[in-house]
Amino acid sequence: MLFIGVQERAVMENSRLEGRILERGREFFRHIGDEKPSIFNKNWWTGKVMDASMANEPFKVQLFRFIDVLPYLTTEETLGRHLEEYFAKDENVPAVLKWGIKTTGIGGRLGMKLLGKTVRKNIENMALQFIVGGTVPETVKNLKKLREQGFAFTLDVLGETTVSEKEADEYVECYLRLLEGLQEAQQDWPALGGGDSGFDWGHAPQVNVSVKPSALYSQAHPADFEGSVGHILERLKPLCRKVVELGGFLCIDTEMRKYKEIIFELYRRLRSDAEFKDYPHLGLAVQVYLKESDKDVNALLDWSRQQRLPISIRLVKGAYWDYELVLARQNGWPVPTYTIKAQTDAAFERGVDKILQNHDTCHLACASHNVRSCCYVMEKARELKVPDDRYEFQVLFGMAEPFRKALLKMTNRVRLYCPQGKLLAGMAYLIRRLLENTSNESFLRQTFTEGRQLERLLESPPTNLERLAAEGKDKSPLAEITLASKSGFTNEPFVDYTNVGVRQSFYEAITEVKKQLGKTYSLHIKGKDVSTADIIDSVNPAQPNQVIGRVCQAGREQVQDAITASKEAFQTWRDTPPRQRTQYLFKAAEVARRRKYELCAWQVLEAGKQWNQAYNDVAEAIDFLEYYAREMIALAEPRKMGRVPGEDNRYFYQPKGLAAVIAPWNFPLAISCGMCAAAIVTGNCVIYKPSHQTPVVGHTLLQLFIEAGLPVGVFNYVPGRGSVMGDFLVDHPDLALIAFTGSMEVGLRIIERAGRTPPNQSSVKKVIAEMGGKNAVIIDDDADLDEAVPQIIDSAFGYQGQKCSACSRVIVLDTIYDRFLKRLLDAARSVKIGPAEDPSNFMGPVIDASARKIIYEYIKLAGREGKIVYTCEVPEVGYYVPITIVEGIMPQHRLAQEEIFGPVLSVMRVQDFKQALDWANSTRFALTGAIFSRSPEHLQLARQEFRVGNLYFNRGSTGAIVERQPFGGFKMSGVGSKAGGPDYLLQFMDPRTVTENTMRRGLVPVDEIAP
Amino acid sequence: MLFIGVQERAVMENSRLEGRILERGREFFRHIGDEKPSIFNKNWWTGKVMDASMANEPFKVQLFRFIDVLPYLTTEETLGRHLEEYFAKDENVPAVLKWGIKTTGIGGRLGMKLLGKTVRKNIENMALQFIVGGTVPETVKNLKKLREQGFAFTLDVLGETTVSEKEADEYVECYLRLLEGLQEAQQDWPALGGGDSGFDWGHAPQVNVSVKPSALYSQAHPADFEGSVGHILERLKPLCRKVVELGGFLCIDTEMRKYKEIIFELYRRLRSDAEFKDYPHLGLAVQVYLKESDKDVNALLDWSRQQRLPISIRLVKGAYWDYELVLARQNGWPVPTYTIKAQTDAAFERGVDKILQNHDTCHLACASHNVRSCCYVMEKARELKVPDDRYEFQVLFGMAEPFRKALLKMTNRVRLYCPQGKLLAGMAYLIRRLLENTSNESFLRQTFTEGRQLERLLESPPTNLERLAAEGKDKSPLAEITLASKSGFTNEPFVDYTNVGVRQSFYEAITEVKKQLGKTYSLHIKGKDVSTADIIDSVNPAQPNQVIGRVCQAGREQVQDAITASKEAFQTWRDTPPRQRTQYLFKAAEVARRRKYELCAWQVLEAGKQWNQAYNDVAEAIDFLEYYAREMIALAEPRKMGRVPGEDNRYFYQPKGLAAVIAPWNFPLAISCGMCAAAIVTGNCVIYKPSHQTPVVGHTLLQLFIEAGLPVGVFNYVPGRGSVMGDFLVDHPDLALIAFTGSMEVGLRIIERAGRTPPNQSSVKKVIAEMGGKNAVIIDDDADLDEAVPQIIDSAFGYQGQKCSACSRVIVLDTIYDRFLKRLLDAARSVKIGPAEDPSNFMGPVIDASARKIIYEYIKLAGREGKIVYTCEVPEVGYYVPITIVEGIMPQHRLAQEEIFGPVLSVMRVQDFKQALDWANSTRFALTGAIFSRSPEHLQLARQEFRVGNLYFNRGSTGAIVERQPFGGFKMSGVGSKAGGPDYLLQFMDPRTVTENTMRRGLVPVDEIAP
Repeated sequence: MLFIGVQERAVMENSRLEGRILERGREFFRHIGDEKPSIFNKNWWTGKVMDASMANEPFKVQLFRFIDVLPYLTTEETLGRHLEEYFAKDENVPAVLKWGIKTTGIGGRLGMKLLGKTVRKNIENMALQFIVGGTVPETVKNLKKLREQGFAFTLDVLGETTVSEKEADEYVECYLRLLEGLQEAQQDWPALGGGDSGFDWGHAPQVNVSVKPSALYSQAHPADFEGSVGHILERLKPLCRKVVELGGFLCIDTEMRKYKEIIFELYRRLRSDAEFKDYPHLGLAVQVYLKESDKDVNALLDWSRQQRLPISIRLVKGAYWDYELVLARQNGWPVPTYTIKAQTDAAFERGVDKILQNHDTCHLACASHNVRSCCYVMEKARELKVPDDRYEFQVLFGMAEPFRKALLKMTNRVRLYCPQGKLLAGMAYLIRRLLENTSNESFLRQTFTEGRQLERLLESPPTNLERLAAEGKDKSPLAEITLASKSGFTNEPFVDYTNVGVRQSFYEAITEVKKQLGKTYSLHIKGKDVSTADIIDSVNPAQPNQVIGRVCQAGREQVQDAITASKEAFQTWRDTPPRQRTQYLFKAAEVARRRKYELCAWQVLEAGKQWNQAYNDVAEAIDFLEYYAREMIALAEPRKMGRVPGEDNRYFYQPKGLAAVIAPWNFPLAISCGMCAAAIVTGNCVIYKPSHQTPVVGHTLLQLFIEAGLPVGVFNYVPGRGSVMGDFLVDHPDLALIAFTGSMEVGLRIIERAGRTPPNQSSVKKVIAEMGGKNAVIIDDDADLDEAVPQIIDSAFGYQGQKCSACSRVIVLDTIYDRFLKRLLDAARSVKIGPAEDPSNFMGPVIDASARKIIYEYIKLAGREGKIVYTCEVPEVGYYVPITIVEGIMPQHRLAQEEIFGPVLSVMRVQDFKQALDWANSTRFALTGAIFSRSPEHLQLARQEFRVGNLYFNRGSTGAIVERQPFGGFKMSGVGSKAGGPDYLLQFMDPRTVTENTMRRGLVPVDEIAP
Repeated sequence: MLFIGVQERAVMENSRLEGRILERGREFFRHIGDEKPSIFNKNWWTGKVMDASMANEPFKVQLFRFIDVLPYLTTEETLGRHLEEYFAKDENVPAVLKWGIKTTGIGGRLGMKLLGKTVRKNIENMALQFIVGGTVPETVKNLKKLREQGFAFTLDVLGETTVSEKEADEYVECYLRLLEGLQEAQQDWPALGGGDSGFDWGHAPQVNVSVKPSALYSQAHPADFEGSVGHILERLKPLCRKVVELGGFLCIDTEMRKYKEIIFELYRRLRSDAEFKDYPHLGLAVQVYLKESDKDVNALLDWSRQQRLPISIRLVKGAYWDYELVLARQNGWPVPTYTIKAQTDAAFERGVDKILQNHDTCHLACASHNVRSCCYVMEKARELKVPDDRYEFQVLFGMAEPFRKALLKMTNRVRLYCPQGKLLAGMAYLIRRLLENTSNESFLRQTFTEGRQLERLLESPPTNLERLAAEGKDKSPLAEITLASKSGFTNEPFVDYTNVGVRQSFYEAITEVKKQLGKTYSLHIKGKDVSTADIIDSVNPAQPNQVIGRVCQAGREQVQDAITASKEAFQTWRDTPPRQRTQYLFKAAEVARRRKYELCAWQVLEAGKQWNQAYNDVAEAIDFLEYYAREMIALAEPRKMGRVPGEDNRYFYQPKGLAAVIAPWNFPLAISCGMCAAAIVTGNCVIYKPSHQTPVVGHTLLQLFIEAGLPVGVFNYVPGRGSVMGDFLVDHPDLALIAFTGSMEVGLRIIERAGRTPPNQSSVKKVIAEMGGKNAVIIDDDADLDEAVPQIIDSAFGYQGQKCSACSRVIVLDTIYDRFLKRLLDAARSVKIGPAEDPSNFMGPVIDASARKIIYEYIKLAGREGKIVYTCEVPEVGYYVPITIVEGIMPQHRLAQEEIFGPVLSVMRVQDFKQALDWANSTRFALTGAIFSRSPEHLQLARQEFRVGNLYFNRGSTGAIVERQPFGGFKMSGVGSKAGGPDYLLQFMDPRTVTENTMRRGLVPVDEIAP
């Protein structure tokens, strides 16, 4: 009964609170009156355009993308061209934008020029509306005005995307200069709310800055948790020192979820640092749209109490909703955010409750444009008797002017969040704001453009949610859409390093695997381990005296045994029902999932793969197993051909026979596993020759298949010296198929030898060869360099450039060349080189001494053919080569033609996009390529004419994912269809047709007749 | 007004007639009483089994198929095995059949033995019920009994399927012996209806026989209309003479529609023959289920009046309904029969009207078991005052006993149609009767098992039809089911030689083409004719001094020019939208359709193809054009891969580049066209080298593409000597792809050379090679030899055995070996050899002197390795070789291993089915194969273990049809996927993936999100 009593009381209290909130909300709206925020005012260009955006989603996308690219459109020609490309074809473009485009076309220069000017001016004005000032003096002047209107401020310096340490340094510099200016200016500022404490409202520092910490370390990454926290802190401290010096307030902004734990740790370290622990004006932001925000708030409050260090939390709803959702779905993670606005609103109120209940140790900054949320804070604070100096309200500068005025009238304590800095950086900010304003769920949109009923706007989030649920509107398509293909396939989720358990697992697995180094590995033939006298050591390329394993090498005799075993196994395996065959792959995938960190660790140590690279390799191996198994299920069903009655035609596939799989070392598990799994699931038997650089990782593949219970002889592990057994294997008349991934030279040799068919061979050998690449990335003149630079670093130097998909040429348009190169070099300078087992190292050693030698030769050549503009120191022990960037390379140079397979990047300057495409296509290879461009027509042109197997728009050239980006090229890059794609398995099989004449004596089975 | 008056009167009269029919029908049913035909009597085994058949369609199929095979199951083992295979797995088998099977299995020998005996006995009794006698004395005895009961008869000798002239002779012999017996017996027979005229009922001969004319000439074929009529007449005359001698009646039965015109012509010739024109007792049957029956009846009546020769028509509904329908659909012809029973019934009554109106010149035999139809005849005859001697009624012996008794009571003039002869031949007849009885539309079924309302059973066919239409039941699924694939593809209809216009077109086209012989043909490069000095003559293999055309031969220079032209054209063609490319194929198909007879004629003369073979080649060429075009439309659409938001992945295909198409002479248009069309529609440019034996037919392909308007340089016609330009073409570094069809030797050479990749070559050459075959057909111990023998003749010797799919080994189980071989040799003896332009010749010359020489060498070898059991004379002029059948060949013999490409057939004897499969698989080739077997388990086993590209059950090994039977093999039979199949085009293209990162600044286009 007591329990019910408590519940009932809560309901009553709640209803009383809701009543007061409603009352307060009405008052709030009375203060707002009829005024509209300028952004929604249809008398103005902005209002008209916003209106069109909300009415027409495709136009909104085009418009926002156009705004995004606008700062790069510095010439009349390029501005006009983009205007036309973005808007000329769309029927729904509003008149205000359309004017001039259609009639003038490219020919009508004058019209276009005028239009361009107008559009640029209008959009810049739109952006400027959200930016308090471009320079320090301008900022100071405008802040003064705001303060005169009664608003406090917090300043945020635009341009948080720092792709290099140099940019991070410059960013810190900006803050310091700004603080310098503010220190001086605040001398003259009267405190808000009067009084002469020097504090606004009697308690708040007049100078208040917000800092995005990821900007302080260009290499911040959750995998390198300690390194990230440490490096950011290093740059944050001087900044903090300055804030303390001038008696200001420092708020650490929260950004993307991936930095969240880093930021929390950063805040705790800073706040408890001996130097700052007595300074109370340090705060941080918490995003309640994250499902874990309740936990986060509690943890921060607990920490504050435990440490007896009062804190300040700015409670925000969160600004990266689409991004986080898309990222999570792309990575296969659970969606971390609430997907319905009302859920976030509810979390906000829960956070408010919690913080206000702990107002003794935590100050609250309520940062919301939602009338209901603000009124909730007011009434909750009153209910809990929270003193005024323990909470305040924050509103974004430039947004919702009527709202901020009303809020000021009602609370007196309103702080504006004021971005400051260059227009270019401001565009990204503008788009975020526009997205917010035009989102269907935007409170402002609902309030100011849709005339939503007041009671609805003020209703409590749980009530709102209930209503939405009843209307069936409580689902987000983006969050709910199933990622599984028709066959049930979904990619293995990528690793989430924000999870401390994941990081721990990596360290533990590496430690564990290190205990197992130096073992001897036998061959595995016909289900038995087979030792040979010829043994080679596989070593850690970062530490060549560390033996990973001692691996027996097959001679011809063992190859012959393996072939004999395969032939025997084939007699049963070929007719094993395909569905049954798939079960072994599913089991192997299960085993790999269970052992994934261990599998990674072997790669880290034997192949010099960074954590991420190793994990992606293992995930890809699992994907291959799952994908090919499911593809096989679809292919296994004999297809009925034709529709005439009286005959039954079935089209189906049978395995080719014995398959040699000759694998490379750079994706030592994934590629091996993909080729073997494809061969096996289609009913072939496999003689697997792992690369001699990574035979131990190759052995882990054997372990997976053994643990999966694959029948004896279907898979035989036969490492060996190419010189001893390579030709013998390739030439063997009992082979039906060779699946190879590796260099062009070896590939062509295999193809040539396999083309000879001796009389004792039963079928022409099929060769599936994935060979080299000489991949180019084009940087168009409108490329987003914030995106392009780090992606080029990643594509060119990730895993030391030892991927067939690696970017080895970057083709840059003349007009953007200098800007790009400068940032690229700074970014290159910023990465750390060292053993892969340390996650702070971006780059490690190349695979072996021979590779190092070849790459050094190319570096020498680079100096002769072009001009080396970047090189660096590397560790002495281990097979390291420096990152090398070389300018002045022309298509005819060897540097531009030959695959180097190392961290050597040629930068090539072209005059126009057409030349860029020509140069991109000018090699013997056609594997991958990428373009950074925001020109719809250039992208469309590239879609057809940038002729490579895998082409990427606005992302790097590496990292193809099974099913999503079936991988493989043509020309000298390969023979055969794409790995991880829908045509791959067909290559391992021969089609057959069985036709039954079903009519006997005029009798036709009736089931055939049914349509 | 008059018009309406006439109509009204007709309606009134009609209604009066209907009233009388109803009255008469009621009387009829009163006579029938409660008695059921024995076949439906559930107290008996037959009745139970019929009942189960009608309730369960799959069981019916199994049962009727079992009945079909039963006569071949001469041993206890094979009977038991089949019983088990047919019925053990079916849950719905009625107890009477199931008994013993399940519990005994293979092990339960005793149970199975008993069961086997019972089943055999019961089924044989079922068959015997429909057969009046097995021998002449037995027949005579039983006929006497029937006559004593008051029934007249017409006799039909079972076993009309004659696969050789010997069998046709034997069949005639049977009739003569029978007539002999009847001649003697009729001396003692009192005339029915009393009187001493010696005629039954005062006017009808006592002896009456029905003859199926196709049985009289084993090579009867509508293409050879004159030959067929002549040869049948030759054997019919002696028989007719005998009938005249004994004063009997001869009725020419009608059979399958394909013989209809032959039969009508035969009847007209016989009836008007000087010898018989005064003999009035010659009749023929007309099937009213054929839509053209009204026309046919009119024509016969007109002819009778014109010639002043009275005739007699037996009006039947038709007994090959399913067969005709299926055949028409399989051939792409309009369905020739009515598809709803009521339509046939209506046609019957129209036929009755017409004949009775002309009773002065035509006697009517009403052959129907339909009470309504019979009553209609009675009432109509009364209305038209037709004398009794001008019409009679006919009923099948063994069917519907109560019906025939009632009919006799009502009309007095009932003749029973009495099959006579061996049980084996009777099984086919039994099945036809059972099908009739168990069909949903069967009048007997409706009358005797479904208790259909009397008024319904007697309603007029048009009324019945109206009702069915109202109920939506006036459609036949079998007739209505669309044959078009999802892509809209349907096969080009096969030729219907029953159409005199078609035959005429062939003769005319050959005449026309003969006028054009001897022209000079240039190369065609870059849209221009190019002459060379090197010219070869292409000749008619049947008449080597007849030059078909003089054809310029390409040297290396011309090949280089063609490659240069292709490269140039490729720049535009590669990016021509795929849908646009398909239009050229559709146009070429249109042109080919318009010129089809001409295209055939060129093949008849240059390649020695028979009409049929030539037509099939042209139809296949059209199919390739239509099929590949439609496949390309499906492949052209970039496929969206993956489902994650924020990225757009598209998977699509691009052409490989320059394609050399190296074509064979044996399908000179079809295979050339298929390879070229595939290359072209996928965006490649083609250098086409036709075979040097058929360059003029190759030129017709050029003409098609020119007429279709294909852009210049996309297709280049480059005939030439292999020794001069072959390697140069194959080795050319600018080629991306070689499509070849031809011998293994040349194929392997091309593959080997193409495997070498010089540094100036841009991609590894892709070779699509269709090579040889050494195809086996297995004759299982239960094979239906009526089907197997002619199909083997066709597969082995059709087009002189010059097909890669030709049967060159027939593997026969020991127990059926002798029976098979005897019939095969007789059948081989029956075919005519001579120039292909004469449609009476089954076989023509081989392609050239060199082929003849090689084949003769193999024939010599055949004599050494085995025993030649058949050879024959061949014409002296022309490249003829005899049909050669050789026994005693073992798998190790060259005759069993090497492709001969001529009319040489090895017959191999095996002990069991397992050995048959082993031997079938024992060659280097794996192209086609076939099995004649009625064992479900053997067929199932073969489905997996008879490993060839195209396997056929119960039909020959040749004649694959585009889409229905995608064609091609593996092992040494080919490399690559099947022509005319769903994977074929993929080989001409490289897949590409374009991935667009669609998220910019957190903004994701919303259309991606929609599920």
